[in-house]
Order: sequence, then structure tokens, then C-alpha cells
Amino acid sequence: MVRPRVLVVAGTHGNEINGPWLLDQWRQHPALIDSEGLDVQLAIGNPAACAKGRRYLDRDLNRSFHPDLHKEASESAAESDREMVQALELLKQFGPKGQTPCDLVVDLHSTTSAMGNCLVVYGRRPVDLALAALVQHRLGLPIYLHEADAAQQGFLAERWPCGLVIEVGPVPQNVRRSDIVLQTRLALEAVLAAITSVRDGSARYPDQVVIHLHLGSLDVPRRSSGDPDALVHPNLQGRDWQPLKAGDPLFIDAESNTVVFDGEDGLVPVFINEAAYAEKAIALSLTKRETWPLPKDWKEALAELLR
Amino acid sequence: MVRPRVLVVAGTHGNEINGPWLLDQWRQHPALIDSEGLDVQLAIGNPAACAKGRRYLDRDLNRSFHPDLHKEASESAAESDREMVQALELLKQFGPKGQTPCDLVVDLHSTTSAMGNCLVVYGRRPVDLALAALVQHRLGLPIYLHEADAAQQGFLAERWPCGLVIEVGPVPQNVRRSDIVLQTRLALEAVLAAITSVRDGSARYPDQVVIHLHLGSLDVPRRSSGDPDALVHPNLQGRDWQPLKAGDPLFIDAESNTVVFDGEDGLVPVFINEAAYAEKAIALSLTKRETWPLPKDWKEALAELLR
Repeated sequence: MVRPRVLVVAGTHGNEINGPWLLDQWRQHPALIDSEGLDVQLAIGNPAACAKGRRYLDRDLNRSFHPDLHKEASESAAESDREMVQALELLKQFGPKGQTPCDLVVDLHSTTSAMGNCLVVYGRRPVDLALAALVQHRLGLPIYLHEADAAQQGFLAERWPCGLVIEVGPVPQNVRRSDIVLQTRLALEAVLAAITSVRDGSARYPDQVVIHLHLGSLDVPRRSSGDPDALVHPNLQGRDWQPLKAGDPLFIDAESNTVVFDGEDGLVPVFINEAAYAEKAIALSLTKRETWPLPKDWKEALAELLR
Repeated sequence: MVRPRVLVVAGTHGNEINGPWLLDQWRQHPALIDSEGLDVQLAIGNPAACAKGRRYLDRDLNRSFHPDLHKEASESAAESDREMVQALELLKQFGPKGQTPCDLVVDLHSTTSAMGNCLVVYGRRPVDLALAALVQHRLGLPIYLHEADAAQQGFLAERWPCGLVIEVGPVPQNVRRSDIVLQTRLALEAVLAAITSVRDGSARYPDQVVIHLHLGSLDVPRRSSGDPDALVHPNLQGRDWQPLKAGDPLFIDAESNTVVFDGEDGLVPVFINEAAYAEKAIALSLTKRETWPLPKDWKEALAELLR
């Protein structure tokens, strides 16, 4: 077996159709993306949801990878929860102890928010952060570190020894755009090149990495019925990654009353007005931008994984 | 009964959520939109699809209003076709012979295409064209005249004596944006003001009206499996309403090969890369821009309807 083996997943959400098209074209034209001599496995995360053009059928597949959930699933009839079955199937096939065990996973997503081309990392695993730092050094992509959010757990990437999400937007659900496909491809190529550089000893790490730490999320104002009573303010729409200051407008209602930001100056909003997060009561998330020196043990951990 | 009675519908497609929010807010704040003394009835076209955030459940409601379909539906068990049941329900309640008969219908839609704020008219009924001309004179909105398309039939607006669609974009499905809501509201106010102006004799018609006549639609290139083998070209994306000339790129594949436009110079593309039309094998539609003088009988027909 050639190591490391890299799993590239697209269509974890069935209405994010740019990644799946890229993988489909890569299968048709193997020279399209240089796999750098790595053993790359391609998978559609949620084929049943993709066939219907829906984010998911029974539950969000990208919240279905928490080990505790799987313990429950194996004890109960999982037939009524198609995503739980699919999560277990992906692990059985490509998980670290699966039939074709993979060491790393890259999960391709898109968003209706103006996130540009960016990386999402779950928690502070040294291997994830080292790999993200290498990609940031190559392409300058912002990194969103999602952690410590009790309401959002069980992400796919967490179940492999190393895993990143590539997130590209804005693009509507169920729309393919050539610019979105191109950005996805550039980020994926940068990840594969970074992995190769660690393997062959040519990796050039930056001295520091810029991280956006997840702090929490805000919902739109709602009335007692639960119906939204305001919208994202036009001055905020499309301004992902741009620091807020106190008094900046966040929401606007039908009669033009605004709700303003009253938090700490400099917090950075992400995933502003993402279509799929309305059901999670998230109109945007807030992050804190920090610059971290790159510790030696991150690099060693990634080198060790890829040895 | 105050005449004319105007039906305003939103959420005919359950993932177009800006119109429904506008109606919800209008119900909460009756002063939000000046109904100009008209008897305005508000309806959610497809509440079950709206609840699920899906365009439709069993079939496109806005292709379910063909009288022939209803003949079939009444002869068969319609339980399995929820949109057919809903179409009949809307007609029973608000149709010209319904419980609360309405003379005109305004159907609020949104699109992922960069259509801006525009009107869609189905066929060449003088009353529709006269009303659209009045709105175009007020706001300058482009008019798309959809006709003679055997593959696309049974639109809601056709079943009332007079009916227009207000179509606003670009906005992703299941995303609310304040600019989209504002444009929808402006167009709706212009329609209501135009109706009132005909009633009170103050209507100011333009000498001519600019119409975009539907000629047909193009699909993306597909391989034999049916899978798309190319995407809308970035030079075309977002250029709805901008005339094409021979040689302009239409599509691009993963290896950057392009398909160019080889039709008549000056044809105008609309609904470029609309998410919901992929299943209808439509990547864009082509129209011919024509300027028509405004015949006297259009005005008389609308005055007669609103008398």
C-alpha cells in the first residue's frame, strides 16, 4: 500500500454540486488534477441526497460522525436514519480501520456566503493545523477554526487522523459555476502539493499562521412565533472576513429599523446568510482573528503521520 | 364586493423565500405597502413546499395549472400529486369562479439568475401586456414574454383574467436578502399603483413597450450518460439581458474548451444558470428584443377588466 492515502470527498451535502462535478470530471480526465503520486480515493459523501439535490435526507451527514451517535446507531434500527447509515458506510470503506484505510480526508463544500476560498479545521489537532498552515502559505487562504460548539458536533473530517474542509462561495445551492469549481480545484491541488512536500522533505512552513477562532453564532431577530422579523443588513451581506466594530449594522427589519453590533471591536464575521444554517438558527458566526507562531510539534506530528 | 380584487401570491415555489417574507411582514404591518384602496388577497402558493424549503413536493406547482391536467386530476386519485391538489385548491378559493373571486393575480418569484427586477408575461393577452407596459413605464422593468413553449405549460398566472409574475434575482434558493425583498416590494407597489391608475382614469401609458420574446432554450453539453460535461462560461454568467453576438462563449468544460454562440446577433439571454431549470434541461433561454407600439385595444381591454 502506498502511504499516505488521501480521501477526497464531495457531495457530503447533496445540494453543493460544484465539488461532485470536479470529482466527476477528474474521473473522466485523470490528468485534470496532479495527484502528485499519492494514492487518492474519490468518494461522493451522500449520493442519495445528491440525487435529490437536497442537503440531506434525514439529518445533516456532516453532523453525523460523532462516535457517540454511532454507538446508538448500532444498537437501534438505523434504517430510518439514512445519513447515519451512510456515515458508517463511509467509515467502513475509507475510515482509518476501513477496507481501504485513508490517512487524510479533504471534504469539498460550497456555501451561499461570500467566504471566498477558505479552509475549515475542527479543533486543534496539530496535524490539521500544520497542513492548513502549509496551504495558507501557498495560497493565502483564510482558516476558520471551528471548536467548542456544543450545538455543532460530529463533522466528517474529525474521524480521520487528519482532515480539512475546503469551503468556497458564494454560490447558490444546486448551481454550478466555473469560478467556484476553479477555486475548489486550486485549493485541492494546494492540499495535495502540501502533503507531497511533507513526504519528500521539501515542505516550506510559514513562521506563523493566521487563524479565525470560532466564538459563537448570532441568529436574526425573531418574533414569538419563531418567524424571522429581520434580515441580514445590506451593509453586512457579502462582507465575510471583514472585521466588525461596535455600531456596525447587523440586521434590518421591513420598516428599516436596524440592529447593530455591540460586541468587541475587531471580531470577524463568517458564514453570513448561509442558506443551510437558517434551520440551525445561525445568521452568521463570529470569530477572533489571531496570529500564531508555528510550533515545532505541529510539523513533527504531520511528518510522523505522513512517514 | 370591491372590484377589482387582486390576488398576490408568494411561495409558489417553496424555496423562493423572499416574497413569502414580504407578505408575512405586510400582514404584520398593514401600512408597509399601500394597497391603494384595492381589495388585495394574500396567499402562499405552496405552503407544504415552503415548510420544507423545497421548490415542490411532487411536481412544479407553476406548471400545474393547465386545464387539461385538472381534467385528468379530477378523474384520478390526486392524493399522490400534492401540487395538483394545491392548484385546484387555489382556484377554488381565489380563482375567477372561486369563493373569493379575484380579477388579477401577481405571482412573486425569485431566481438564482441575474435577472434584476423584471416581469414575466405568459402569452399575448392584451390585459397582461397593457398592465406590464404601465409598470415598465413607471419602473423601467424589462418584460419577458413566455409563449409557444410546448415543454413549459400550465403557469399559475394564466388561470386568472389578468396575471403577471414579478421575478427578482440573483438570490440563492432559501436565502433572504433585503435588496431582493426591496425590489420585489417596489415592483409590487408599481403593479398596484398601475391598477389604481387605470381605475381612476389617471393611467399614463407609454407610446411603446419593449418586449423580450421567448424563442427557445439551450442546455449545457452533456455526455451520453446525461451528466453535464461543461458549465456556463464565466463571461456569460450574470449577463442576463445583455445581447449576444456570434462567437460569444456560452459554455466551458473542465479542460477550458469553450462552446460559442452561433445564432443570430442580438439575441438576448435570460435565466442564465437558474438552479431549478437544470432538471428542465435549461441552462439559459434566448429571447428577441422587440419594441412594439401600444395598441388602443390593449388599453381598452384592461380598462374593461378593471371597470
